[in-house]
Amino acid sequence: MKQAKTAITPTRLEDYPEWYQQVIKAADLAEHSPVRGCMVIKPWGYALWENIQRVLDKMFKDTGHKNAYFPLFIPKSFLEKEAQHVEGFAKECAVVTHHRLQAGADGKLVPAGELEEPLVVRPTSETIIGAMFAQWVQSYRDLPLLINQWANVVRWEMRTRLFLRTAEFLWQEGHTAHSTLEEAMEETEKMLHVYSTFAQDYMAMPVIMGEKTESERFPGAEKTYCIEAMMQDRKALQAGTSHFLGQNFSKASEIKFLDSTGKEEYAWTTSWGVSTRLIGGLIMTHGDDDGLIVPPRLAPSHIVILPIMHGDDSDTPVFDFCGELAKELKAVMYDGRPIEVEVDKREGRGGDKVWSWIKKGIPIYLEIGKRDIESDSVFVGRRDKSRKERFGMPRGEFLSKVSEILEDIQNNLFERAKTFRDSNIKKIDTKEEFYKFFTPANKDKPEVHGGFALCHWNGKSGVEEQVKKDLNVTIRCIPLDGEPESGKCVISGEDSVRRVIFAKSY
Amino acid sequence: MKQAKTAITPTRLEDYPEWYQQVIKAADLAEHSPVRGCMVIKPWGYALWENIQRVLDKMFKDTGHKNAYFPLFIPKSFLEKEAQHVEGFAKECAVVTHHRLQAGADGKLVPAGELEEPLVVRPTSETIIGAMFAQWVQSYRDLPLLINQWANVVRWEMRTRLFLRTAEFLWQEGHTAHSTLEEAMEETEKMLHVYSTFAQDYMAMPVIMGEKTESERFPGAEKTYCIEAMMQDRKALQAGTSHFLGQNFSKASEIKFLDSTGKEEYAWTTSWGVSTRLIGGLIMTHGDDDGLIVPPRLAPSHIVILPIMHGDDSDTPVFDFCGELAKELKAVMYDGRPIEVEVDKREGRGGDKVWSWIKKGIPIYLEIGKRDIESDSVFVGRRDKSRKERFGMPRGEFLSKVSEILEDIQNNLFERAKTFRDSNIKKIDTKEEFYKFFTPANKDKPEVHGGFALCHWNGKSGVEEQVKKDLNVTIRCIPLDGEPESGKCVISGEDSVRRVIFAKSY
Repeated sequence: MKQAKTAITPTRLEDYPEWYQQVIKAADLAEHSPVRGCMVIKPWGYALWENIQRVLDKMFKDTGHKNAYFPLFIPKSFLEKEAQHVEGFAKECAVVTHHRLQAGADGKLVPAGELEEPLVVRPTSETIIGAMFAQWVQSYRDLPLLINQWANVVRWEMRTRLFLRTAEFLWQEGHTAHSTLEEAMEETEKMLHVYSTFAQDYMAMPVIMGEKTESERFPGAEKTYCIEAMMQDRKALQAGTSHFLGQNFSKASEIKFLDSTGKEEYAWTTSWGVSTRLIGGLIMTHGDDDGLIVPPRLAPSHIVILPIMHGDDSDTPVFDFCGELAKELKAVMYDGRPIEVEVDKREGRGGDKVWSWIKKGIPIYLEIGKRDIESDSVFVGRRDKSRKERFGMPRGEFLSKVSEILEDIQNNLFERAKTFRDSNIKKIDTKEEFYKFFTPANKDKPEVHGGFALCHWNGKSGVEEQVKKDLNVTIRCIPLDGEPESGKCVISGEDSVRRVIFAKSY
Repeated sequence: MKQAKTAITPTRLEDYPEWYQQVIKAADLAEHSPVRGCMVIKPWGYALWENIQRVLDKMFKDTGHKNAYFPLFIPKSFLEKEAQHVEGFAKECAVVTHHRLQAGADGKLVPAGELEEPLVVRPTSETIIGAMFAQWVQSYRDLPLLINQWANVVRWEMRTRLFLRTAEFLWQEGHTAHSTLEEAMEETEKMLHVYSTFAQDYMAMPVIMGEKTESERFPGAEKTYCIEAMMQDRKALQAGTSHFLGQNFSKASEIKFLDSTGKEEYAWTTSWGVSTRLIGGLIMTHGDDDGLIVPPRLAPSHIVILPIMHGDDSDTPVFDFCGELAKELKAVMYDGRPIEVEVDKREGRGGDKVWSWIKKGIPIYLEIGKRDIESDSVFVGRRDKSRKERFGMPRGEFLSKVSEILEDIQNNLFERAKTFRDSNIKKIDTKEEFYKFFTPANKDKPEVHGGFALCHWNGKSGVEEQVKKDLNVTIRCIPLDGEPESGKCVISGEDSVRRVIFAKSY
């Protein structure tokens, strides 16, 4: 058994980006496909996404939203209706120009049947959904319109990284229309809070809610709100965004309604989304040098039972005991669903099998041998603790406490991540310290730097440009819970009324 | 209230294709989008699809399959690997040729960044999934590989019809690899039976399982099995297919493994799928001249409660009673999930509101007024029966019987559809009768014809071509439960060993 070394090579400290790739491989979450920039999400990774979907979908429905489905393709002219929007997405979109393949002069297949108007594979759906909303909304009685879509989208990224940045990714996009500015703002904030609750309570990933500065806004939005999380390399991950679109898209798509006084008005719209990028966030929040750690509330399987096998008749009572135990565990509820249990009877070395599950991040692993059966007990490993901390427990006691143990793991992961994050947020008030904070001490490890800097800012994009150029640092957000506080901009020395978060980011 | 007339104009008898469009509109299921051939699935239609997904997904998982996700795009060269496959799909595929838009000479945006190799938007994923399987499979220990994908696919159809034939549609595609021919055949048949069970037990849609003739096979398959249902215009709808792909795709994609003796072999593969087309089948199996009828097991909502409103203080006790009733109903389980209930307090004429729900096909509608409250009873309408058959029932009794009533509706829908289908299947043994059976009596109603003809066939494609040309009739399938029976081909008079199903089809 690999006890001296770590299961993942390199470790986080040795090479964080490579560690990330290796965890994905070791946990069998996803891999690159032969199609440039597109990933294949493998069963364990997809099951994580299904659990994310299950929980979020319920939260969306509980807040009054309904799912619908809109076309994959967006006519070029639709994208062009909102000037900033098309500027933001034109550079990175897959363009469909033909509708068949036919044999060319040399007998090889070439595109044929040119389209009158090119179609863009949706990078996001404001414009096509806007066109439908314009048909659906006539009167204030038709509002609010609260729609969500689960879909694939394509943004042609040049440099891709599994889950974090891929040409095609899976996401949900909420799109709503309202009769007043206030109601649309309330929706924008409500969904931001839904994302925050999901991130913290299910992903066990602490996040900071805030507003983006103008330079980081969604193309076409009036205001963009976000949740930002700190990864273990102290870089920020934007984990979800909620946009107040004002009347920009309703004017572009002609979403008009008669208000209660009979006056024609443009609707106020919002959009909000999270994607498979969340899985990248989950990996980098909780993973350790032995691989992935999955928060129990999102775990595809909560518990694996590993019978200690000898390949002879003596295995039978062990299998029987494990089978019975699995049945009993499956009857226990955790977080509103029955506990998911695997019994791993595969051939192969016991140590390799245990480690394969550790690398997959399963919350609890039980190694069961003859002696456990004799004492009617189980030998419990918790993924959030070290192998040395495994403990024996009478079977009955384990059954009655298993939900509690899972919830303890869930809470422990959150607390651990929060402690790490909080200890790497620093209030910085001088330019010198700011530059030092973000300059790696070791040139070989450019990724190791300070963390989040909570600083005063003059509100001008010049400062943003400067720190981006010098340090590759951006303002991640203006935190919603920040108290007004007068001070001087950390870079320019000009007046400032509140602190913002500066960080390197994914 | 529209009691004399039907809620849908035209009726099924007057104009079946137009009736179909009008039912979709009246039930607010879907509509055409501004993107050629692509539909928008609206909340009530999408909720049907979600329920279809929920049930099928469980059936797939219970038979050992895991979900995964593969790229939307397929390189042209992948499609070309299997000769029949590319021939089948090249004529109708969306081709991505560029990866950005940029301003042309006149300032308008034009496609730019031409791809080295065109990408096809997946019409189906055998080739891209095959490429991944080739990497994942090394030894017989890696088999069987049992994967399913829920995805959107694109087939550039020239003539489209909502749900039945659209350029983009939603589906699931199962893809499996096995070490032996027998096991792959067993899988092909197993999934066909899963589809049949789903269609009959959940959609309440009777189906015939059978094998397709060579001319109707999936491009690249060795054998294609299908479930065929009869719509109310007596045309056939292919509702699901399961393909035995032999070693065709494993040879094209190099899916090879070492068997237990160390010999290298090509894997045997299968694929199987159903799509949003099922919703078209549901509409045309159960819908009547008042609109959609949704089988309770797939209903987005089972029951709507309609308080009889006067727009004054007298509404309060009615709302209270209805709210309490809704809460009680939601605590009742039906088919493994809590009953879904809507309380419709919208303004507007009571009659219009009832009819809006009838058109949506909700299984049970309750109209509740002051007198019902006084007698502590409910006034029940069943969507599978006429308005005249509404009945009162003490509230307590209704609560204890509601699951039973829902299941009775489910069974009634199935029996009704089965009786209709069976009464329109005819054994035909002469060419004259065959032509008469499929020739509309009334030229103005070309869709009204005989139904399914169960006939002897010589096994040759010449007969298929002839009846397709003369009558637009094809062999829908060679039924799996057909008994061997010697006879003479109904068209050619040549020897035949069993009957097949001829029909017009969607």
